Amino acid sequence: MDISQFNDPSKLKALNYEQLGEVAQTIRQFLIEKCSLTGGHIGPNLGVVELTIMLHKLFDSPQDKFIWDVGHQAYVHKILTGRADQFDTLRQYKGLSGFPKRAESAHDVWETGHSSTSLSAAMGMAAARDIRGEKNYVIPIIGDGALTGGMALEALNHIGHEKTNMIVILNDNEMSIAPNVGAMHTMLGRLRASGKYNTAKDELEYIMRKIPAIGGHLADAAEKLKDSLKYMVVSGMFFEELGFTYLGPIDGHDYEELEKTLTYAKKVDGPTLVHVVTKKGKGYKPAENDKIGTWHGTGPYKIETGDFVKSPAKGPGWSALIADTVQKIAEEDRRVVAITPAMPVGSKLEKFAKRFPDRFYDVGIAEQHAVTMAGGLAADGMKPFVAIYSTFLQRAYDQVLHDVTRQKLNVFFGIDRAGLVGADGETHHGVFDIAFLRHLPNIVIMQPKDENEGQHMVKTALTYDDGPIALRFPRGNGVGVKMDEVLQSLPIGSWEVLERGQDVTILTFGTMIPVALEASRLAFQRRGISVEVVNARFIKPMDERMLADIRDAGKTIITLEEGVIAGGFGSGVLEWYHANAIVQEDVPQVKVLGIPDEYVEHGSVDELLNEIHLTAEDVAQVIIELNEDEEAR
Amino acid sequence: MDISQFNDPSKLKALNYEQLGEVAQTIRQFLIEKCSLTGGHIGPNLGVVELTIMLHKLFDSPQDKFIWDVGHQAYVHKILTGRADQFDTLRQYKGLSGFPKRAESAHDVWETGHSSTSLSAAMGMAAARDIRGEKNYVIPIIGDGALTGGMALEALNHIGHEKTNMIVILNDNEMSIAPNVGAMHTMLGRLRASGKYNTAKDELEYIMRKIPAIGGHLADAAEKLKDSLKYMVVSGMFFEELGFTYLGPIDGHDYEELEKTLTYAKKVDGPTLVHVVTKKGKGYKPAENDKIGTWHGTGPYKIETGDFVKSPAKGPGWSALIADTVQKIAEEDRRVVAITPAMPVGSKLEKFAKRFPDRFYDVGIAEQHAVTMAGGLAADGMKPFVAIYSTFLQRAYDQVLHDVTRQKLNVFFGIDRAGLVGADGETHHGVFDIAFLRHLPNIVIMQPKDENEGQHMVKTALTYDDGPIALRFPRGNGVGVKMDEVLQSLPIGSWEVLERGQDVTILTFGTMIPVALEASRLAFQRRGISVEVVNARFIKPMDERMLADIRDAGKTIITLEEGVIAGGFGSGVLEWYHANAIVQEDVPQVKVLGIPDEYVEHGSVDELLNEIHLTAEDVAQVIIELNEDEEAR
Repeated sequence: MDISQFNDPSKLKALNYEQLGEVAQTIRQFLIEKCSLTGGHIGPNLGVVELTIMLHKLFDSPQDKFIWDVGHQAYVHKILTGRADQFDTLRQYKGLSGFPKRAESAHDVWETGHSSTSLSAAMGMAAARDIRGEKNYVIPIIGDGALTGGMALEALNHIGHEKTNMIVILNDNEMSIAPNVGAMHTMLGRLRASGKYNTAKDELEYIMRKIPAIGGHLADAAEKLKDSLKYMVVSGMFFEELGFTYLGPIDGHDYEELEKTLTYAKKVDGPTLVHVVTKKGKGYKPAENDKIGTWHGTGPYKIETGDFVKSPAKGPGWSALIADTVQKIAEEDRRVVAITPAMPVGSKLEKFAKRFPDRFYDVGIAEQHAVTMAGGLAADGMKPFVAIYSTFLQRAYDQVLHDVTRQKLNVFFGIDRAGLVGADGETHHGVFDIAFLRHLPNIVIMQPKDENEGQHMVKTALTYDDGPIALRFPRGNGVGVKMDEVLQSLPIGSWEVLERGQDVTILTFGTMIPVALEASRLAFQRRGISVEVVNARFIKPMDERMLADIRDAGKTIITLEEGVIAGGFGSGVLEWYHANAIVQEDVPQVKVLGIPDEYVEHGSVDELLNEIHLTAEDVAQVIIELNEDEEAR
Repeated sequence: MDISQFNDPSKLKALNYEQLGEVAQTIRQFLIEKCSLTGGHIGPNLGVVELTIMLHKLFDSPQDKFIWDVGHQAYVHKILTGRADQFDTLRQYKGLSGFPKRAESAHDVWETGHSSTSLSAAMGMAAARDIRGEKNYVIPIIGDGALTGGMALEALNHIGHEKTNMIVILNDNEMSIAPNVGAMHTMLGRLRASGKYNTAKDELEYIMRKIPAIGGHLADAAEKLKDSLKYMVVSGMFFEELGFTYLGPIDGHDYEELEKTLTYAKKVDGPTLVHVVTKKGKGYKPAENDKIGTWHGTGPYKIETGDFVKSPAKGPGWSALIADTVQKIAEEDRRVVAITPAMPVGSKLEKFAKRFPDRFYDVGIAEQHAVTMAGGLAADGMKPFVAIYSTFLQRAYDQVLHDVTRQKLNVFFGIDRAGLVGADGETHHGVFDIAFLRHLPNIVIMQPKDENEGQHMVKTALTYDDGPIALRFPRGNGVGVKMDEVLQSLPIGSWEVLERGQDVTILTFGTMIPVALEASRLAFQRRGISVEVVNARFIKPMDERMLADIRDAGKTIITLEEGVIAGGFGSGVLEWYHANAIVQEDVPQVKVLGIPDEYVEHGSVDELLNEIHLTAEDVAQVIIELNEDEEAR
């Protein structure tokens, strides 16, 4: 079967189950091969092959709207809608996105990346349809993990209330990224175990007929008893209580069950939830056997063995370094508690969880709850460490603002994947956190220059007791420096000069420090410009004494950050200089370099830095131009 | 009964129901009297008098932790914990807060203001307790409205999973601020109607015994039938499914029921949810009869009649003006859809809802869902108007970032209560929205100088079709200007000079414009300084041509905003000037005035502006100092 022939999903309508099986087989093989080279979300996509095929067979995309929650499971959908030939470029710069993208195809009606948004978007599209009096189907496909995100629950509550026509596909694979947690997960487990409702129904009606007729004051009770039958023959009362018709659970790899149930769902009035049980990684043994989420998203791998192709790293992984240092301190400080919203693997907290099961909480995909729960712990004297990706902390902005910083609670935020993340692209870059945290009172924000300073910053954070403190660190690995044996706490708000220089000062931190050092080298080599490089490791509060000294020395300043310019660190530097200026001459020239006012797409971090002009070469160029302009005046 | 004797809640333990009834009577009368003078959340507090008394009788605050969701219903708690004598200063500058405040009392263990945070905070405190091996109770008290907020549902899911000991009080008064919506609300209604479970239980067991013994293949089915009894005798399956023991519903004004049920709840292992039905406004007829939420929070009123003491307003209320203008345009543009997260009254959308029931959605307390649903509508060609308070938009930051601005969808945000809001204080001031929106790509942000410009901005927003657009407007009323008959669209990014001047330019917008004009007058009167005042009505994008002209004219600049300085509008002005500077001389002196890096407490807006130095007098002083310094150089 030639996969490039899959360019019109309506062709699937004519195929029988056997032929559809061949389609599935072809797609699986294709995915396993392509992802072995590019990396990608192989596990989730292998799980939804039959489901996606059957959806495209029974519905008419794009008039009928498929909304893929999170969106990492849309590869099969991309193949069926004519994008197989672009899979060589998957998740690469200017290549096929790993998530739905409206610019890629009319079949991608909604873009995702973060979880739990699909039901709200679907409600919007269903409302638009109903207002216009149209008849198309709206079909959000959401995982059991994403369903526990607060906004998905808000949407369920609203959709059930409005009785809106909608077919929600609950893709239950018992895992989100890591194995799921939460009471709803347990409930879904019971549903899976209970089997299909139809089998029991006839038998129960037989029993009911055996209940003798009852009159008098007991008649009501008998009526209630009959009503209660509904609770047994109709499973999924949780969803029924919310106003949904629950159908399932069904086998998501069985075309007949899928077709029968989805065809029925099309006829149901009001919102339907179809509970589809799928197997993550289906058809590829190493992924099928995965119990902890290793195969959720991967880099390249060897198909035969399932071994990952590892790129050589100089230093320890950042997540592991931070988690391990927290654990080290937790050995001595019983107040330290670790919280993760569904990222125990990504945040490398498995060891901590094993060592301190009573002081570890994986709360599921629930960033808001994670942050405010940490607030509750801190309000009661504990030292919570919230391990959270920068992009997901966005989901808990108000909780940081209203619950934690406002009450000045001692919560330690470990902000992982800060900065550009590469292949996951614009929904996942951690480039907003400085801008959305810096304007909050009472918070300390820091980023280390290397893993040694990183471990000291963990110590700093867990020693600090005057409110919230955030430690940002990038995706990937440290630079390979020697690690101190003894942890020490850094003075809050202290910067350090890494390289002395007379002409220009670069204020920067974290991943941009090597860029600044290299730019400094280039500027000196080419024009003899002497550049000072400062490790501005505290983004808030800043080192005011050093800021004043730099101004008084009359140097031109460059700020350099892997975060948005608007409202970012450089902006804070500008605010300080203007707040402390008496006359115009007190304001130094400051060139703010960072991420421009646009969403940055996917690609390697180096390619992206090049695109947005944040390479050493770019910075050297800015230094040289600034110097020329100053000399020319 | 002397209310000032209520200073130690443990004294309640010795009182019988009759005496407790007198306590309730005294508190009700006190609340009705005090709130008639100060205003306040009278309705919610009258509803929880008996509940609060019984909680303090049965538990030992502050070892046992009461966590008041939203917190506006904590007046009774404040009285019982010795703060009755401060009620003359309720919600006033330096007076008693309308919400729990940790600095006020050891009995206020958690601060609130926004809804749906209590369960997460309670989980944190319960975790802290369990880690330390302590035995205190943790008792979040949450309304049925707040329960539909996503983070509360995230917390339910997690608490049920952890099986944590906790007594959740569901205070069900069938209203949040407006009457509640959502499927959960319908479900709670069914529970209320079903009455207490105990009455039916015996009768049902009798019937069960009448079912003949069944063997063979039907035995399983019979067993299932018996199990299913649970679904009837144990109401509240929604909560039971989530791992909670559900108790109720009980009458929240009946001491005996309260005592019996809460005493039982104390013995239950794992999380319990006690469903308490209360009557908002109980004991004060005008508030009891309220059907739409008028008596949720009020200003001063006449006790006898329930008439509100109205302060004279010059112009129309801002919320009404914006809502009515949206409605006017909706008459001609069928794509206009209005969405509110539980604020139909506050946002004055009742008329719109009546006129266009099919294009109006009150989604309940669900800000995240509201914003992304609007995104779904826009993605499908509609023109959604999201009416939302600035402080509550914080809850949907990621939805604005990830769903709306990233996809550049035509969502119109009507940001109500922007700026300082007065008596509700630090949890409610709308002072962060510029800082958290300005750094998002693709969004337009504007604020009108008066209600006439306001109506034109509504037209501008609904005409604009190149992405999201936000219109911020303050609490309260317009200034009383003449209204144009014909609506017109303003050029995006255009500012206007309101007053010409040679020495200093003030860039400002909205509520700060009168302050700037008065400061200008004072500076001229006292020192002959000529001040230019610019209506910088587009906060993003800015009027770059005007920015360049002002710089080229060599004037000193003041930016003035009722929002946080860090990352705010003034910060954007600094960014622009530095980005466009070739040499140091190109950077004008800019003094950024706004809200400093701290949370501003409650009080009248004028008192607060005085505290943070944003009065006309303060601004005039800055103008004079800047001018002197420039002249002195």
